[in-house]
Amino acid sequence: MAHDVRVVTEAELRGVLTLDRALTDVIEKAFATLAGEGVVMPPVLSMALEAAHGEVDVKTAYLPGFDGFAIKVSPGFFDNPKIGLPSLNGLMILFSAKTGLVQSLFLDNGYLTDLRTAAAGGVAARHLAPAQVDTAAVLGTGVQARLQMEAAHQERPFRRLLVWGRDPAKAARYAEDMGARLGIPVEPVAEIGAAVAQSQLVVTTTPSRSPLITRDMLHPGLHITAMGSDQEGKTEIAPEVLAAVDLYIADRRAQCEVMGELAPAIAAGAIPGRSVELGDVIAGAAQGRGADSDVTLCDLTGTGAQDTAIASHVAGLLDQTAVGSVIRA
Amino acid sequence: MAHDVRVVTEAELRGVLTLDRALTDVIEKAFATLAGEGVVMPPVLSMALEAAHGEVDVKTAYLPGFDGFAIKVSPGFFDNPKIGLPSLNGLMILFSAKTGLVQSLFLDNGYLTDLRTAAAGGVAARHLAPAQVDTAAVLGTGVQARLQMEAAHQERPFRRLLVWGRDPAKAARYAEDMGARLGIPVEPVAEIGAAVAQSQLVVTTTPSRSPLITRDMLHPGLHITAMGSDQEGKTEIAPEVLAAVDLYIADRRAQCEVMGELAPAIAAGAIPGRSVELGDVIAGAAQGRGADSDVTLCDLTGTGAQDTAIASHVAGLLDQTAVGSVIRA
Repeated sequence: MAHDVRVVTEAELRGVLTLDRALTDVIEKAFATLAGEGVVMPPVLSMALEAAHGEVDVKTAYLPGFDGFAIKVSPGFFDNPKIGLPSLNGLMILFSAKTGLVQSLFLDNGYLTDLRTAAAGGVAARHLAPAQVDTAAVLGTGVQARLQMEAAHQERPFRRLLVWGRDPAKAARYAEDMGARLGIPVEPVAEIGAAVAQSQLVVTTTPSRSPLITRDMLHPGLHITAMGSDQEGKTEIAPEVLAAVDLYIADRRAQCEVMGELAPAIAAGAIPGRSVELGDVIAGAAQGRGADSDVTLCDLTGTGAQDTAIASHVAGLLDQTAVGSVIRA
Repeated sequence: MAHDVRVVTEAELRGVLTLDRALTDVIEKAFATLAGEGVVMPPVLSMALEAAHGEVDVKTAYLPGFDGFAIKVSPGFFDNPKIGLPSLNGLMILFSAKTGLVQSLFLDNGYLTDLRTAAAGGVAARHLAPAQVDTAAVLGTGVQARLQMEAAHQERPFRRLLVWGRDPAKAARYAEDMGARLGIPVEPVAEIGAAVAQSQLVVTTTPSRSPLITRDMLHPGLHITAMGSDQEGKTEIAPEVLAAVDLYIADRRAQCEVMGELAPAIAAGAIPGRSVELGDVIAGAAQGRGADSDVTLCDLTGTGAQDTAIASHVAGLLDQTAVGSVIRA
């Protein structure tokens, strides 16, 4: 039986949705729901296309109380920049959770993923960073390095931002762009240790495969959000950091054991002392930061729950509009 | 960077693609490729939505030599018929295997899945059924019961078809429809054993959760294609049948161990003697039917390789046409 499917492009989505605290609220609710009963979130489907230097991930989750569920496909093809294309692409499909019918196709080229990923960083800052953040630091200079600090700044309006990047030219450009965007001083730093030493909030956003943050860099009153590692083999945080922090917070423990910072830590026998899931902290089922002086580490691998939440949210925003194309399928 | 995505509906797809031997050739090639080097076919992503009596499967495969790969989403929501909707739906997405960009969206409501599933039955008949099939039988009366026997008849033009269904009225309707379609006598039979006894080719197409075909029904020169079981818990073939046949052929052994007839057989300790994959038979790497008198069983669970093959095939057919809508995403 034919039914209407709304197809919405990246440009159209950019017109209706930006990164703000309301979106962080949406993602916060997704994590809170994830902590409750009745959630179904299968393991990520991952396919490596070695011949093309590519990989594809498929994520999904059913969240009770949501009318729909998203299936999100994220291809990453790392030779694309050589031919003028972005590495990351993809789309989200929103299905009715009652009938399984396709409702909306978001041809977002990864835009919704960018936003829901950054908003998860906002949630982490909201619930885990010290109440007062004077200085923040970011490792990496790409899209997430920008969006993450925008979301974090909305939650903890730090007065100064430090940026470290492998490429000094990119770090300089980041400092210029983000200084203008956030209206605060943004300074490139040459050493990761120096950046961490001065900061109460650090966000790591790189595709690194060897640790960038080591135990000697930790200091009282530090929160780290590590969001770069989302594939087996990636890591930004040394195993001994996980063993040393006062609290390790996973977006989803089962995923972090496979593709997050927990994977190499477990392999090295560096088991976090106290360890909770982000949703449990939001829902009040687990304590987050205990004291201002605690050192906390939040490990974000990206969950299908966030995809279902943002896709449902966008569908709601579009509901009474004529945005997109309607195809009778 | 914006690029063009072609969106094609079920009605449009029905206009360009039907079940014929050329399509069986396409699926045969998919299986042959699956037997070779360089294939990447991750386990099926499966999500059960118990509250809605639904399930969703996601399949994909990268096949060397194919320019694209499909990701196929198949929702099954079994309360849909109560509100006038079909249980099965879904879509296929074709991505470039070089850049990961979305190329085509096939809003097929499961039509391409129906065809590629039936064509796999055609491939099984082509390579595994006795050379002469006078009488064939089908268990089940639904869409696949129809398409499977159409594909099988193209390969082995049997002179008579027997049909067994739980609901005699549906079996009678099937007999009438398919008699007209195939131009041969189609007769409903009340007992499965009687249907199998008279047939050289039997295809099982039901969602049964307990065995329909038992060891006592086997006779020399019988080929069975079992395609109903595609989820954990489903089964149409008794475990002792798998232990008794001369050759057990899996579409993909790793999948059949989870969601095919091999799952309950292994659990019951009934291990097939000689066991091969369909692709190995096609590629000549393994022997199929040895003698006309052999009893063979082919277990089809449905592979992402078939999805990639049919999606690529359709994209090729549409290449120089204006079928569908082009959306600049």
